[in-house]
Amino acid sequence: MDKIKIDNNVFIPMPMSILGVRINSKENYMAVGWISRVNANPPMIAMGIGNHHFSLNGIKENKEFSVNFPAEDLLIATDYVGIYSGKKTDKSNVFKATYGELKNAPLIDECPLSLSCKLVEIINLPSNSIVIGEIREVFCNKAYYEDKNINFKAMKAFFLTMPDNKYWSFGHEIGKAWSDGKIL
Amino acid sequence: MDKIKIDNNVFIPMPMSILGVRINSKENYMAVGWISRVNANPPMIAMGIGNHHFSLNGIKENKEFSVNFPAEDLLIATDYVGIYSGKKTDKSNVFKATYGELKNAPLIDECPLSLSCKLVEIINLPSNSIVIGEIREVFCNKAYYEDKNINFKAMKAFFLTMPDNKYWSFGHEIGKAWSDGKIL
Repeated sequence: MDKIKIDNNVFIPMPMSILGVRINSKENYMAVGWISRVNANPPMIAMGIGNHHFSLNGIKENKEFSVNFPAEDLLIATDYVGIYSGKKTDKSNVFKATYGELKNAPLIDECPLSLSCKLVEIINLPSNSIVIGEIREVFCNKAYYEDKNINFKAMKAFFLTMPDNKYWSFGHEIGKAWSDGKIL
Repeated sequence: MDKIKIDNNVFIPMPMSILGVRINSKENYMAVGWISRVNANPPMIAMGIGNHHFSLNGIKENKEFSVNFPAEDLLIATDYVGIYSGKKTDKSNVFKATYGELKNAPLIDECPLSLSCKLVEIINLPSNSIVIGEIREVFCNKAYYEDKNINFKAMKAFFLTMPDNKYWSFGHEIGKAWSDGKIL
């Protein structure tokens, strides 16, 4: 294949989420694309958050946070909380917060899927922090949940690519995992 | 919104990649969906790898690995290296390996995008290990690279959802990041 050497700072496709924290007795929200599951049992998730971000203060203070998955109809609000910092802008009223057992993990009511997480560990890297959280409660719009499966396509979850900074919808089903490979 | 409490073990949409390592002087490959960028500068990537996986041995031994992004035409081969373990199956001939500067990071020739990474740290979690690597070299099919941007849609990168175990294509462009939110 005709490959060329390119810049090391490549970005991979990212599922868009919104981090929810409490700081100074108010909710704050931030768009996050650097996110992945990292542990199977107990279920844990991790995010790469820039060290300068205001939301890190809330996580360090309360050891709790939420991760919310927006649908396409929340694209503008998601982008908004990714542009403006909570240092200068009060974003507490952008979404309606509800709470489960973790009182410092504001669950975004408008998002079809919300996870409340307990901080496990923060790994300090040069420009970012890896925030690892254990998923303690999950709330899903019941229209998108069947047989223990969340239908992200129907939910209209979306993705981000950089540096073209484009949001993308889910495409169509192209194969079956732990299955299609058996024909080789 | 009408949300219900569901099981904590939720999976979020995953960009499909293939980890490449060398073990016992041979290449080994493994499908990986738990992956994200984690540090901006220097560029780092992290993966959540089950502690039982054979590929971890290669990472620990050589402190190097590759991350490759397959196109849809490699879906079956990607799924294959996700099903069968290198403990029992020699997967060294599934792909053609080429090498950059890191001689233990086999770059999959058939994949349009390949990253060679130097191990930074392994974080031990109960069932998985977070493998953090610094991106040291990147090779991209030049048909998909323009103005420092990789066109993942044209490249036909794909996603995985679980537990329905479905692979998904990229959809269409639905918005502009760090831009659309300014109208709020």
